[in-house]
Amino acid sequence: MLRKLAAEFLGTALIVAAVVGPSYMLQDLGASAAVGLLAAAIVVAAVLYVVIAIFGPISAAHFNPAVSLIFLLRKELTAKEFLPYVLVQSAGAAFGSVVANLMFERQWISISINGRLGVGEAIGEVVATFGLVLLILLLLHWQKSNLIPGAVALWILAGHLTTSSTSFANPAVSLGRLLNESGAGIGPESMLGFWVFQFFGALLALAVFLLLTKEKTSE
Amino acid sequence: MLRKLAAEFLGTALIVAAVVGPSYMLQDLGASAAVGLLAAAIVVAAVLYVVIAIFGPISAAHFNPAVSLIFLLRKELTAKEFLPYVLVQSAGAAFGSVVANLMFERQWISISINGRLGVGEAIGEVVATFGLVLLILLLLHWQKSNLIPGAVALWILAGHLTTSSTSFANPAVSLGRLLNESGAGIGPESMLGFWVFQFFGALLALAVFLLLTKEKTSE
Amino acid sequence: MLRKLAAEFLGTALIVAAVVGPSYMLQDLGASAAVGLLAAAIVVAAVLYVVIAIFGPISAAHFNPAVSLIFLLRKELTAKEFLPYVLVQSAGAAFGSVVANLMFERQWISISINGRLGVGEAIGEVVATFGLVLLILLLLHWQKSNLIPGAVALWILAGHLTTSSTSFANPAVSLGRLLNESGAGIGPESMLGFWVFQFFGALLALAVFLLLTKEKTSE
Amino acid sequence: MLRKLAAEFLGTALIVAAVVGPSYMLQDLGASAAVGLLAAAIVVAAVLYVVIAIFGPISAAHFNPAVSLIFLLRKELTAKEFLPYVLVQSAGAAFGSVVANLMFERQWISISINGRLGVGEAIGEVVATFGLVLLILLLLHWQKSNLIPGAVALWILAGHLTTSSTSFANPAVSLGRLLNESGAGIGPESMLGFWVFQFFGALLALAVFLLLTKEKTSE
Repeated sequence: MLRKLAAEFLGTALIVAAVVGPSYMLQDLGASAAVGLLAAAIVVAAVLYVVIAIFGPISAAHFNPAVSLIFLLRKELTAKEFLPYVLVQSAGAAFGSVVANLMFERQWISISINGRLGVGEAIGEVVATFGLVLLILLLLHWQKSNLIPGAVALWILAGHLTTSSTSFANPAVSLGRLLNESGAGIGPESMLGFWVFQFFGALLALAVFLLLTKEKTSE
Repeated sequence: MLRKLAAEFLGTALIVAAVVGPSYMLQDLGASAAVGLLAAAIVVAAVLYVVIAIFGPISAAHFNPAVSLIFLLRKELTAKEFLPYVLVQSAGAAFGSVVANLMFERQWISISINGRLGVGEAIGEVVATFGLVLLILLLLHWQKSNLIPGAVALWILAGHLTTSSTSFANPAVSLGRLLNESGAGIGPESMLGFWVFQFFGALLALAVFLLLTKEKTSE
Repeated sequence: MLRKLAAEFLGTALIVAAVVGPSYMLQDLGASAAVGLLAAAIVVAAVLYVVIAIFGPISAAHFNPAVSLIFLLRKELTAKEFLPYVLVQSAGAAFGSVVANLMFERQWISISINGRLGVGEAIGEVVATFGLVLLILLLLHWQKSNLIPGAVALWILAGHLTTSSTSFANPAVSLGRLLNESGAGIGPESMLGFWVFQFFGALLALAVFLLLTKEKTSE
Repeated sequence: MLRKLAAEFLGTALIVAAVVGPSYMLQDLGASAAVGLLAAAIVVAAVLYVVIAIFGPISAAHFNPAVSLIFLLRKELTAKEFLPYVLVQSAGAAFGSVVANLMFERQWISISINGRLGVGEAIGEVVATFGLVLLILLLLHWQKSNLIPGAVALWILAGHLTTSSTSFANPAVSLGRLLNESGAGIGPESMLGFWVFQFFGALLALAVFLLLTKEKTSE
């Protein structure tokens, strides 16, 4: 269990560092908004691939309370495991933000003031988290879990430019993004709203997954 | 069958959302034309990989009436399945466009006025759809269907910059692109013309495929 | 045999179209030089992956006289096959250039006047072709031919920015690049020089390959 | 043994050439800082994939004294092999820098004056090398060594923008970067500092790896 929690902590920390770090780097380099978003999308996708591939065999590589909730509902995560998972994901996300802040010599912690929540962004987070959870459930169902690292990476890469919210799709990462002054940050109120739509998107994905796979026996 | 249609609907919707959404995003960010096209190409490729990988085991992941036509001609799709496939692909494409319009807080639906059809673009759509269908047929023939998600993604990525038409290569996606005001849109007349050249390219691919594989027995 | 030649023709044509087409597209879009080169590198890599994956089982997917020469020397291509291979590669390259010229509504054929040959570029072509041939020989030797499409794609992608010559690494592609007015073109004299250094790089790779693998028995 | 050393020499040389070459190329093309860094990240990742894939079966594809040290500590590299490995890695790195200098017609060798070492960069190199070594150890532990070329490539790609130091993560590559006048260069004092933090990151990864995997028996 400690191994699992350590893996969830480290993985989530690395993901958040790979969101916040590039934001500082690209700002320091004077990147245009479009180049910056494309670069950030590619970078976080690359790190998602790595952490899912290396920590998957330990903790199943959730790194995401919305994903952990779905696995709890599917009884693939016990109730006793759920809360610790979410706590270390959150702690890891915060730690990742601090590491990025220190690497780029900003204040070690601060609270973002970026407002991000509108109607469009709400739909964006639903779509982003819906797709993320649906792809994980379907690939597990087809016993193609070896494709999950790449598919998650590509989905989040695409989501950065496809969804108006740039696809946070992860309550823990949203928390990590709260704790810095970078352009990738999110203010407290927007974060709370994002949480709602992320969990909603995840539950929608579970419903669609059940719909798509339940007919199977009758075919 | 309902599962198949739901998969075709969802997959085509996600593809179109990943074409129209980035167009709004990149326009809102003030991307240069070249960066915008490269980013759009990468994003749609990423989503193509994901939807083909996750929905392939359900519906064979056509998401494209030109592909469905070829499978009909090869008797791998029944006549009874063909029309519903094309209808849900079209409906999914329209839905994907609406979702993107809403995510970026545009009018939920509108008709594009982008004229796109010239001689060069006509050749472009033939080349784009020819390559798409040929790669699918050949990889199935070599029993390497596991390579199809990646190969389709890379082909369409490349087509965005290689063909003068930016590789729509899909009548349903063309319809989805009609129904929005983004830079990725296509006007009604161009769309109709694109349909012709897309189906022509697909049939050409089938002919070349038969030519490339029929000698096999005599070798 | 006809199937093999058709595959070599089509594959080389698609590669050259994916070199010349993006050059026109990026020029028409006003891409900066750096974005243009990066985009071109990504696009040709994507097409290389596709054509090697789909035509490999037919013709071994050389698409390159320097590669065919090495296979001839290794007796994996017969002398009777070598000349037809090189001829259809050359014809395919020319055809790919014409298709790109037509897609972008330029003159259907013209002779490039881009001078490209200097000392640095000569070394560049040696390095580019050396690495290309070495990776093919080694991956075949380790019986990992399934990695060749991706590795060739990534090598040529990298070569566009790593070598001063932007990694033509292919005499047939060099010929295809002669026959258009795009920025990707190469003038006749530079092309002849490139041919020399490409074949030299290929032979150097064969020598290093033999050196790297001959000790194997004594270990 | 000679084969192994030759593979380490060649692989490290190609990596350094793929760091220094693009730096010259992008500078000559007038790339903006952000596009330049993204392009450089993609290019070196592509070459890392290739050299690890092709030389891995010969030498285990370290190309990195910090990686070799960890394998020495784990007794997967003998003490007799360690020093020659590090020497040829260093020589290869220097040779790769010279090749890049010649390809771009700069002085064949020179000493960089780029100061790079600050507190942030020190943390950056620890994070970069920590992640690199941890992913290698874990993927070997899960017997997924076939994923190592891609995972290393993606980690270093991401590190270019995620860490403030742009992820050198390799003492030999740092030495190679000393010996040129490109923007990718590093001055002597910074290099020595980077060495310290790279070896520290590698040792930290070993400690975390042991922690993450030792519980296994008790589960």
